[in-house]
Order: sequence, then C-alpha cells, then structure tokens
Amino acid sequence: MITTYDVFVPMLMGGGASLRTGLKVRELGCQKVLVVYDQGIKEVGIAGKIEENIRNAGVETVCFEDVVPDPPDKMIEEAAEIAKREAIDGIVAVGGGSAMDSAKGINVLMNNPPPIVSYFGIQKNLKPGVPMIFIPTTSGTGSEVTNMAVVSATDLGKKDSVVSPVCLATLAIIDPELTLELPPKLTAITGIDALAHAVESLTGGHANPMSDALAREAIRSIHHWLPIAVENGGNYQAREALMMASTHAGMAFTNALVHLGHCIGHALGASFHIPHGTACAATLPEVIEYAAKTESMKVRMICECLQKVIPEQATTDEIGRIGRDALRSFIKSVGIPNLKQMGLTLEEAMSVAPRVTKDEGMALAPYRITPGKVAEMIASAYDA
Amino acid sequence: MITTYDVFVPMLMGGGASLRTGLKVRELGCQKVLVVYDQGIKEVGIAGKIEENIRNAGVETVCFEDVVPDPPDKMIEEAAEIAKREAIDGIVAVGGGSAMDSAKGINVLMNNPPPIVSYFGIQKNLKPGVPMIFIPTTSGTGSEVTNMAVVSATDLGKKDSVVSPVCLATLAIIDPELTLELPPKLTAITGIDALAHAVESLTGGHANPMSDALAREAIRSIHHWLPIAVENGGNYQAREALMMASTHAGMAFTNALVHLGHCIGHALGASFHIPHGTACAATLPEVIEYAAKTESMKVRMICECLQKVIPEQATTDEIGRIGRDALRSFIKSVGIPNLKQMGLTLEEAMSVAPRVTKDEGMALAPYRITPGKVAEMIASAYDA
Repeated sequence: MITTYDVFVPMLMGGGASLRTGLKVRELGCQKVLVVYDQGIKEVGIAGKIEENIRNAGVETVCFEDVVPDPPDKMIEEAAEIAKREAIDGIVAVGGGSAMDSAKGINVLMNNPPPIVSYFGIQKNLKPGVPMIFIPTTSGTGSEVTNMAVVSATDLGKKDSVVSPVCLATLAIIDPELTLELPPKLTAITGIDALAHAVESLTGGHANPMSDALAREAIRSIHHWLPIAVENGGNYQAREALMMASTHAGMAFTNALVHLGHCIGHALGASFHIPHGTACAATLPEVIEYAAKTESMKVRMICECLQKVIPEQATTDEIGRIGRDALRSFIKSVGIPNLKQMGLTLEEAMSVAPRVTKDEGMALAPYRITPGKVAEMIASAYDA
Repeated sequence: MITTYDVFVPMLMGGGASLRTGLKVRELGCQKVLVVYDQGIKEVGIAGKIEENIRNAGVETVCFEDVVPDPPDKMIEEAAEIAKREAIDGIVAVGGGSAMDSAKGINVLMNNPPPIVSYFGIQKNLKPGVPMIFIPTTSGTGSEVTNMAVVSATDLGKKDSVVSPVCLATLAIIDPELTLELPPKLTAITGIDALAHAVESLTGGHANPMSDALAREAIRSIHHWLPIAVENGGNYQAREALMMASTHAGMAFTNALVHLGHCIGHALGASFHIPHGTACAATLPEVIEYAAKTESMKVRMICECLQKVIPEQATTDEIGRIGRDALRSFIKSVGIPNLKQMGLTLEEAMSVAPRVTKDEGMALAPYRITPGKVAEMIASAYDA
C-alpha cells in the first residue's frame, strides 16, 4: 500500500523551553500577538508568565482568556473579531486541546469570512492566517502538531473539525515543566487520550510506517511512565517522557488518523459530557479486539509495546483477546473508570451505537460494522 | 536541555511508490526535470523506468547519468552547467547517497554562483533552487531526508558538507521494491551505515527526544530485519522495514547529527577508500563504549533495542563494555569485516587518529578526547 506522511510542525523541546516564547515570537517577525488560554491556566500562573515573557521580548500582547472546553463556534468567532480589530500578527496558544483548537479556529477566520462551521472538513484553499506558536500544558491532546481544529457547532448540536494547513502551528514549544503540577486524575485521563491516539492510528486505514514508528514509541513510553507520573506528579523524567509521547502520538494520528474508538468516544462525550480521554478509553480494548481480525500484526505490535507476549501460533481471535485484556488492565491500573463507574446505565451507554456508525471517522476503521455490533462492544466494556 | 527538531521532508512510501514519480513531478508544477543517477542504476534498469514514468506524465527529462561515488565538486559544477543550459525546473535523484548529494549540490548552484566549495558549512542565506524529488535505491544513507550535501573538494583533498534548506528534497519517495535486488554485501554495508546514524545520533550533543524516538525505532528494526535481508534479499517485508529504518535514522541524524564514529569513518574512508558504511562501523562499538561514560542512559537504550539486557546496577564502564560487545557481535553477524580483514596494517589504521580529533564533527561528541585515545580505540577495534 502506498501511504504518505506530510503533516509536520517544527518543535522546541525541553524543561524551560516556554521561556523562549518571546524570542521565538520575535524571530517570526511578530509585533503584536493574541495569547489564547482559559481561566484555569490563568489561575495557576502559567499564562501570566508567558505573556510577560513575550512582552519582555518587546512584543505587544492581547489576551483572549475565555476559552471553554469543547470550544463553541460563537466563542471562536468572537475571539477572531478581537484579533482582527486589534490587528494582531501572531497567535500564541497556551493550554490543552481547547486552547489550541480555539487558536486554530481564530487563525482560519483571520483572512476567511465567518462562520467557522462553513469550513468543516478538509480545506485546501483557505487564505493563510498568521504565524502561531502552541504551548501545550497537558500530555494528551497532541493538538500542537495536528492540522485539525475541533469545533462545537452550537446550532447543529455536534462537534466537527476544520482540517487545513492554516490550522498548523509554525512552532510547537514542548516544555514538560508546565505539567509538573497536573493532578493525578487529569494526568491519567490525558495520558490515556494519547495512548488512544497511538493505538488507533496504528490500526486504522491511513496507518503508514512513519506514523507506526512514532505510535509504537508513544505506547512504550506511556506504558512505562504514565503509572509513575500518576503516582508522583513531580517526577520530571516521567513528565518529559509523557509530553514527548503525547506529541509523537499527535504526529502519528494527524498523518494516520483515528477511527472507531474515537467515534464511540465522541458520541459518548457529546451525549453525556464525559471528558474526551475517558470517553475514548471506555471501549478502546474492545476496539482493538475488533481490529485484530484484519490488523492482527498491528495488535501484536501494540501488545509488544505493552510488554505482553503473544504466542507465535495465536489465532486472530486470541490476539484480539490478549490485546483487549492488556489494554484494559493498563487503563484500569491508572484509575480510569469504566462506563458503569461513570454513572451511565447500560441502556444509556448502548444508545449511542447508531450515532457511532454514522460518524465520518468510521471511513478509516479497519472494516465496517453494524450498530448492533457497536452496542455489543459497549456492553462488553460497560463494567469490565 | 532545550533542543529542536525542525528538518523534515514529506514522504510517499510503499511498494511501487516510485511509479508515482511522474504524477508528483507534475503536481509540483515542473515541466522539464533533470534526472540524476549513476551507471549502476542505469544498468539495472531502474533509472530508465523512472525516466519513462516522468515522460509518460507529460514532463520532459534531461539526464545526468555520470554520478560517481563521493561526488567531486567539478562533477557537480559540470552537471549544474547542463541543468542551467537546459533550463530545468525540477530535479529527480535516483540512487544512493552519491546521487542525492550530487542533486543537492546542483540545486545549490542553480541560483548561486560556483564554486560549490564556497558554500561548505551551514548556509542560511542561499537563494532557493528548484523542487527536488529523491528516490533512494539503498537502505542506508538517509540522504533523502537530510539537508546536507557531502561533496569531495578535489583541490583541497577532503570531503565536506553544504548544509542548507536548498539541499532539502521537496518529497522523498520511499519504494522498498527498488532494493529487492541489492546484493547481500551491499545490503549489510548500507544497513550498518543506517545503524551507525541511529546509534550516534542517540549519543551525540544534539540528541533530542524526537530524534531519539526515531533512532530507537531504527535500531530495533535493523537488529531484527537486517540479518533476514542479508540472508534473503527478496524478502519484501524485510526490505520495507530496512528502508523505513534508514529513513528514520536519516531524520534522526539530520536533526541530532553524528559524531566520533563518523569522524573516524570519514578519516578512514578518505585515507584508504573504504566504503562509508564499513568505515563508520569499524570502531562504532568502541565509540559506544566511550560514550557510555557520560551517556550511559542512552547506551542502555541502544542495548535494549538490540535486545541485550543490562543489569540494573551496572557501572558506566560495564554498560560501555556490554554496549560495545552487543554492537560488535551484531556487526560481525551480518558479515562486515574488521580493519584487519579490510587489509589495513595496524599502523595504517592508527595513523588517522590526529585527523579525527581535528574533524569539526567532534564538536558534537559527548566529550573531547586526545588522538592517543582515538588510536587506542582503533587498536581495540582492529582485529576484534
């Protein structure tokens, strides 16, 4: 099969790297940048430090500090209005996926008229925006290296993505020190989100040897370091390894894309407001069991990275079961709840199945299945 | 430590991918391309097929078929004259490192006056050239994804590099089918060259987490697949894995660079005309033993990728010895000769030591050493 790998964001990495933001903004020729973040990042003091760093480099800043989770179209359009009125010539996003998704949406609207929802899907001919620097503060989303902006369309009652080079950062600054105080629960949820990106990108229809290599590295690293970081958040080595793993998983899935697990995750998230990482983890083990029927070699790889030995002669069904159990046991070990523990009834959980098979992300799943089969997978995962 | 990863070439990968060359050249907007290769590639029929493929896409071709190993400045200048006279608007290189180095040199001279040697070193302000597509036919050099052109300066009696974005391919086409008929000896030499890139980039002064991830993947893959490909050249799975490993190692070293092993390799190569891969492999085990004193964690990683267990409590000296022995045993297992078997006397081999420590590449070695210590390492490797 002929595949491509072409989405790439240059990276500056290391403890304290975010203190070079001002320098880098200047190098990009910016004179006035929009700094995008949420109240949480403001409260822990990270946003203020980075803004000061930018101003100390002689660059003006304008703040948009009202990012909310699952950023809605209206919020993005309002922020883009501010950006245009202030005539900013660069954007710096500080935070998790929501801050970066917002920045991407704002950048699309810099030189393309609203509404943002009119750009859902793959966009090849958008007018370019301004240079962007992304500074993630969690190790999960991978959004700093992807070309997709996930936006909630308020009136349509759904989340969708704008996919375009205009959504790509000019530079990602990967500073693990920013994650040292992330609480254990959020560390686990975001880490499992990154694991889901890696596992799904390995088994999906756009997998390619380069994304496979990065995904394997990410799985190995998360398997080793996530339990350590959940136990002891101040372990710098673990934080660094996880931040790189989440970036590598992001590079893998922006080139290879994700599939069924994310379709189920999005449907659960939209219906019951479950955090993205938890929702995607809920049926990930069953998704891998399902994938093993056509992608058994990839499931073998995943197991090897989880240090689980699969007998040479195992059938695809056995490989699927071993993969499922290995993933489930790891996900439970870092304290991620199952659907029952999240407070859903079995009927509620199973009710999303028809929505899942209609999701466009299913195009990349290893093979098509019925809503009945999806409901079965959800039932198997429910209190496992 | 703060590090960067920013050199990147988009890739098209897969069996038969080279049959899309014409399509891709057209997509790049080219109307007349220079196709660069050597007589060997012409004789096995690869060059002809790709030229035909380009012409079938309605794009004119001009050939430069006289690439020689360690491409000399004069040859590159002559080829650039032809390229300018023919007013080509794209370059396609087909072959190993020499063909790609030649293409890079030609591209530098498209809009910058000769001689090419005046551009040795890191060049930030060269005028851009034309789009380039690189199609490697060996799994070793990694040159398809690097920004360096290695050129032999005839009058100066040395090899040096032009490092510039103008040396970067617009697209690398990775087609493992082109390597199916590579003979066992060349398979081994080129595979070990890629191994040396990965091992040195992990242990050098510019190592970064992204290049580390790619280097680890490359080492794991070469350790598993190189013996298989040497034994049975027609094994497609092995050929594909090795081609990706060599590309990943290339991505690692163009961002993280190589050090002492390559300095010794270049000195041996220049003095005794030993193939690049063999020359770099000669003292690679000793280089890793040396690196372990300050980079023991990285040597542990290398050993893990070679499936060699290092006891938890091992000292850096012990780690160095285990790493050295693991590498040596692997290098011997694929039939790479030691310096004695190459026909050098011990005195000849040791005589390059002063040249090694003067090499600019030493700037990236883990720590500085004397010519005496280099001579000792060469003596240790001589008939090991």
